[in-house]
Amino acid sequence: MSKTRILTGITTTGTPHLGNFAGAIGPAIEATRRNPEAEFFFFLADYHALIKCQEPERVQRSRLEVAATWLALGLDPERVCFYRQSDIPEIPELTWLLTCVTAKGLMNRAHAYKAAVQENLDSGDADPDRGVTMGLFSYPILMAADILMFNARKVPVGKDQTQHLEMARDIAQRFNHIYGEHFVLPEAVVEDDAAVLAGLDGRKMSKSYNNTIPLFVSAKELRKLVMRIVTNSQLPGEPKDPDGSTLFQIYQAFASADETAAIRVRYAEGIAWGEMKQVLFEKLDSVLAGPREHYAALISDPAALERILLAGADKARAIASPFLAGLRAATGLRKLG
Amino acid sequence: MSKTRILTGITTTGTPHLGNFAGAIGPAIEATRRNPEAEFFFFLADYHALIKCQEPERVQRSRLEVAATWLALGLDPERVCFYRQSDIPEIPELTWLLTCVTAKGLMNRAHAYKAAVQENLDSGDADPDRGVTMGLFSYPILMAADILMFNARKVPVGKDQTQHLEMARDIAQRFNHIYGEHFVLPEAVVEDDAAVLAGLDGRKMSKSYNNTIPLFVSAKELRKLVMRIVTNSQLPGEPKDPDGSTLFQIYQAFASADETAAIRVRYAEGIAWGEMKQVLFEKLDSVLAGPREHYAALISDPAALERILLAGADKARAIASPFLAGLRAATGLRKLG
Repeated sequence: MSKTRILTGITTTGTPHLGNFAGAIGPAIEATRRNPEAEFFFFLADYHALIKCQEPERVQRSRLEVAATWLALGLDPERVCFYRQSDIPEIPELTWLLTCVTAKGLMNRAHAYKAAVQENLDSGDADPDRGVTMGLFSYPILMAADILMFNARKVPVGKDQTQHLEMARDIAQRFNHIYGEHFVLPEAVVEDDAAVLAGLDGRKMSKSYNNTIPLFVSAKELRKLVMRIVTNSQLPGEPKDPDGSTLFQIYQAFASADETAAIRVRYAEGIAWGEMKQVLFEKLDSVLAGPREHYAALISDPAALERILLAGADKARAIASPFLAGLRAATGLRKLG
Repeated sequence: MSKTRILTGITTTGTPHLGNFAGAIGPAIEATRRNPEAEFFFFLADYHALIKCQEPERVQRSRLEVAATWLALGLDPERVCFYRQSDIPEIPELTWLLTCVTAKGLMNRAHAYKAAVQENLDSGDADPDRGVTMGLFSYPILMAADILMFNARKVPVGKDQTQHLEMARDIAQRFNHIYGEHFVLPEAVVEDDAAVLAGLDGRKMSKSYNNTIPLFVSAKELRKLVMRIVTNSQLPGEPKDPDGSTLFQIYQAFASADETAAIRVRYAEGIAWGEMKQVLFEKLDSVLAGPREHYAALISDPAALERILLAGADKARAIASPFLAGLRAATGLRKLG
C-alpha cells in the first residue's frame, strides 16, 4: 500500500443543491485532480440512508440523483473507485466482526445518540430511548467498516463527524489488539474552510430549512429561484457590503478569484440587487449548463449508471474480498482442512 | 412454501458432551426422522461464537468438532440443510436491514444484557455497561436474521431462548409493517421435557462446571470418566432410588424404555454402584462406538467436512439470495434502470 487512500461517503437522501456543491462535491472532485498519487474511494452510503429514510421510492430516487450529480460534475469513475455501499456485501460482514469488539460504552457516548436522548428527556419522556433505532445507535460501527474495509488513511469530514472518526480508530485499535495488526488507523481531514452557502432566506442552505437551490433545475427555474434570494433594502447606487450578501457569497463559490474581485468593486460602486441577481444567475447558468445537460443524459439512462456503479463495485470488491478473507481467518472463521 | 421450516442454531464453542447429546443433538436428529414433511435447517452459529470467544484457534477447532459430531451422530446433510452461518453473507446483510427497524429499547430489555448490567451494578461498578460489547448487546438482531433469512416457522429452543424468539417476531412485524408482508412470524418450540443430564459431580453437566463427559473420547477414557461419577454411600444389596441417581439418569438417556425398566428393577434389588458404573459404561460404549469411529474419520479429513459444509451453504444461499434481493428491493436498494 504505497498510495494514500482517501475515502468519502456520500449520503443518499434528498436532491443535491448549490450548498452541497460548494461545501462538498466541488472540493472533493477538485481534490481528485490535485492529488494524482492518492487512491480515491467515493461511495453512495445507501445502507446509512435506511437509518433515516424508510420511504423506498425516495431512497431509490436519491441514489440515482446523487450518482448522476457527481458524475455530471466531473467525478471520473476511471480515475477513482466510485461504488454503492450496498453492492459490497463485505461491508455488513465486516460490520459484524467489528460489532463483536466494540464496547457498548463507546456507542453510548456518540453525539447523535446523546442528542436524541436529550431531546426525549427535554420533552419529559419517561423513555430516554424513545424513537431511537439500533440503526441510529450502532451506525458508527457501520461507518468504521466503510473506512476500515479499504484501510483508508484519510477521511475528509465535517467537524460534526470527527467523533465518528475517533470511534473508527478506537474500534480498529481494539481489533488490532485482539487479532493482530490488520487496520491502518484512519485520520479525519477536517475541512475548516469549506464553504457554507446561505439559502434563499439567508439561513444556511439546507433541505431541512426548505431554502435550497437544486443544482440541476432548468435555466428558467434557476433564474426564478435566484430572483427569490432575500436581500436588504439598500437602493441602487448605494455602496454595499459584499461580505454579508448571500448573492455575493454564492457568486464567489462559483466564480474565479478575478471575477470575484471584479464583483467586489461593483458592490462598492452600488450595483443594484436586481442587476446582481442577473449577474449571479448568468454565472451559475454558465457553470451549470454543461453539467446540467450531462446530468439529464445520465438520469434518462439509469441502466448505464447502473453499469458504472457495478464496475465500481467490482473494483472495490477486488480489494475488499481478499482483505476480508484475511480478517475472517484472523478471528478463526477459516476453511477447514 | 408448503413445507414447515424448522431451524436450529448450534453454538460452536467447546467440545460436545453427553449432556449436549441427550438435551439437544439426539432429539434434534430424531426429529428430522420423525417429520418427513418438514424442511430442516441446521447451522453452526460461528458469527455468534465471536461474541463470546476471541481465541481464533478455539473458534476454528470447535467448528470442526461440532460439525463432525452432528454428522457422526447421524445428521443427514442430504436430508437437511446443514451449513455454517459465516458462509452466508446474506445473513449479516439482513442483520443490517433489521438493525434499521429495531428499537433500541427492545435490546435494552434483553435478559442477557440486563444480567450483565446487574452484575456490574452488584459489584459496585460505576459503569453499568462495563465489559459489554455491541456483539452481546445486539445479538438478538443477528439471531432474528438467522431465523427470518429462511422464514423458519418453528425454532426449537430452550426456555432461556424464548425471549429471543419474541424479539425476532417483534422485529419481523416491524419490518412487515414498514415494507410489506415479507416475513413469517416464527414460533418458539420449547422443549420442556428435554433431558438435562447431571455431570461427574452431580450438578448439571456443563462446560462451565468442568464436570462433563465428552461424547467422543476413547473407550478407555470413557470408562475412567464413568467410574468417577459421584454416588452416595449406599452399600451393595441396599435398595436404591433410581430417580436421584446420576448413573441411572444418564443410562436412561441412552437406553431403550425396556432396558431402562430392567435397570429400575436392578436398583430395587440393590445393584452395587461399581456394577452399575460398568453397566452404564457398556451401554454408552455400545451406543457411541460406531459414531466414535465415524467421528474420528471425519475429524481426520477436514477437507471433506469443508466440502459438506460448502454444499450446505450452496443449498442455503439458493434460498437466501433471491429472498434477500426481494427485501433489498422493498427497502429501496434496487438496481437502477
